[in-house]
Amino acid sequence: MTRIAVIPGDGIGTEVITEARKVLDVALPGHEATEYDLGAARYHRTGEILPGSVQDEIDGHDAILLGAVGDPTVPPGVLERGLLLKLRFDFDQYVNLRPSRLWPGTNGPLADVKPGEIDLVVVREGTEGLYAGAGGSLHRGSPAEIATEESLNTRYGTERVIRDAFQRALRRDRRHVTCVHKANVLSHAGDLWRRCFEEVAAEFPDVTTEYQHVDAAAMYLVTRPQDFDVIVTDNLFGDILTDIAAAVTGGIGLAASGCVNPDHSHPSMFEPVHGSAPDIAGRGVADPVAAILSTSMLLEHLGHGEAATAVGRAVADELAGRTPGESRNTSAVGDRVAARVSELLG
Amino acid sequence: MTRIAVIPGDGIGTEVITEARKVLDVALPGHEATEYDLGAARYHRTGEILPGSVQDEIDGHDAILLGAVGDPTVPPGVLERGLLLKLRFDFDQYVNLRPSRLWPGTNGPLADVKPGEIDLVVVREGTEGLYAGAGGSLHRGSPAEIATEESLNTRYGTERVIRDAFQRALRRDRRHVTCVHKANVLSHAGDLWRRCFEEVAAEFPDVTTEYQHVDAAAMYLVTRPQDFDVIVTDNLFGDILTDIAAAVTGGIGLAASGCVNPDHSHPSMFEPVHGSAPDIAGRGVADPVAAILSTSMLLEHLGHGEAATAVGRAVADELAGRTPGESRNTSAVGDRVAARVSELLG
Ligand SMILES: CC(C)[C@H](C(=O)O)[C@@H](O)C(=O)O
Ligand SMILES: CC(C)[C@H](C(=O)O)[C@@H](O)C(=O)O
Repeated sequence: MTRIAVIPGDGIGTEVITEARKVLDVALPGHEATEYDLGAARYHRTGEILPGSVQDEIDGHDAILLGAVGDPTVPPGVLERGLLLKLRFDFDQYVNLRPSRLWPGTNGPLADVKPGEIDLVVVREGTEGLYAGAGGSLHRGSPAEIATEESLNTRYGTERVIRDAFQRALRRDRRHVTCVHKANVLSHAGDLWRRCFEEVAAEFPDVTTEYQHVDAAAMYLVTRPQDFDVIVTDNLFGDILTDIAAAVTGGIGLAASGCVNPDHSHPSMFEPVHGSAPDIAGRGVADPVAAILSTSMLLEHLGHGEAATAVGRAVADELAGRTPGESRNTSAVGDRVAARVSELLG
Repeated sequence: MTRIAVIPGDGIGTEVITEARKVLDVALPGHEATEYDLGAARYHRTGEILPGSVQDEIDGHDAILLGAVGDPTVPPGVLERGLLLKLRFDFDQYVNLRPSRLWPGTNGPLADVKPGEIDLVVVREGTEGLYAGAGGSLHRGSPAEIATEESLNTRYGTERVIRDAFQRALRRDRRHVTCVHKANVLSHAGDLWRRCFEEVAAEFPDVTTEYQHVDAAAMYLVTRPQDFDVIVTDNLFGDILTDIAAAVTGGIGLAASGCVNPDHSHPSMFEPVHGSAPDIAGRGVADPVAAILSTSMLLEHLGHGEAATAVGRAVADELAGRTPGESRNTSAVGDRVAARVSELLG
């Protein structure tokens, strides 16, 4: 039996997870879901972020579905480092997978790009780089203060995420991988990334390749996002580029993501890219589509390809039927998509 | 007498500098300009990048006007580290100034943003961070290989660039500064940046402030660039954000920049953001507007406010009279703008 750990989290996280679970119920009947109360609310109530025993329990599951954690009342970094990044690192989720599509029926901000024309995926490294937490400071608060941050990159970590990107490209129509770094300035890490990229590329003669500096890639994501297929990049560049990709495809409201451990040695985690949005929480107006699409990625990862495709199609139908600008009811969207999934699978 | 060191550089760099010099001739009569042959061409011919004696000579000037250096035949990093970054660091050009405007008469890629609505400036730190060149690698080429990059940040360097941003904000209509970092992950450097930002903000009660994480800022530059006035950020984030800002205002073809030493202890350097564009070089079709706008920034920096404004107005007139998509002759643009400047100043 498939066991899913569910972390609804804070704010609209809990609302969109309710809808994602409706969809999961029809797409994967008979799974067992256990909810874990983690995030800002628990932190304020008990001071706990991620107790070791809870982490061990979660580790016993097949996958994690997360809503959103966080609140402006929690100091920056506490939940990020203590919960989100801890799970990514401890569970070796080295592929941070972020697809972006300009769905038919939706409106992007770019005048010359039509729905259907953007379909890219960013394979962001998830366990290295500037996210390693290496750094420090001296003489804090004095005029002599210094602060450092260190980007740590291994051939092991670089090669495996690049190989994953090529494998994903093989399963796509265009079979093109763009490697993004800043090799002209970050000469050591950039050199490692470029050499790994060239070496792995040689194993995939059917995949075409390209290298771009991160500043150029950021610009091209705005001026010609249609040209991208798979982008592979480091942890921090991936953080920035995926938000640009989300912006040109209509905002993070629709963006799904997976923190994937492709080796299945620990559970992978799937979550909407949006945050807990305390400003609109509790009003039943959050769009659950990103959480539902994350559920589709979860199904795909666990080998339930047919169910994943059905969820994807149901979302496409939902979006195609929308009138831009119209306000939506969170629960009605979940009901509609779940009903359509059960039709498609029935 | 004002002494300008001119580095035309490679490719279209030399073409746009010819036009910028026409404008400089009428805007600042009686200045002395000396051309320095540096860049990919010289590197290939002599192996030299920036001889010490040449650097010393350039240091004796009031400002530097640079076209563009580089060519795909030069390994990445050679000219960047040996020439561009060397001048930025050695001449203590700690304010990398990058204004972005969606000029009346031009077309941006965003459907809902009208010409005139975007007018922002990024104050990018220019002498610290991941550009320090601190890093290394071990076991290169072996499976055990590692590579590091270190971001070095001082209170001295952070505070001075933030203060500069506030001073610039005071001279603008909206008087708003957005500080961009990634304090939720880069906790040491982010903490230094945020504390410096708050401390300096307290000295400027007339300026409103805001903090954004870099991923969110990248997104907002696409979804609501109109909201930004002054952005202050670190070296690498500034590199990426300024290319997004250029993209939403019609591309790097129009983007000007200055590597500014506000203390005038060494010359500041002004250059278009675009590169040497070998693909279109030699055909007389490069748009010299970015180089001419950089010249306006140079004039402003040297205290020639009236001349700077005249060049800015002449460029605005040029752009307002353009038909989007129309091809342009490099030299004709330079002639038109120079003539208009002489009218305005005459
Ligand atoms: C919340 C934060 C730690 C996180 C990141 O930087 O990876 C977020 O921005 C994301 O993209 O998932
Ligand atoms: C050429 C390169 C070193 C440079 C940078 O990264 O600063 C460029 O991208 C820029 O923005 O001026």
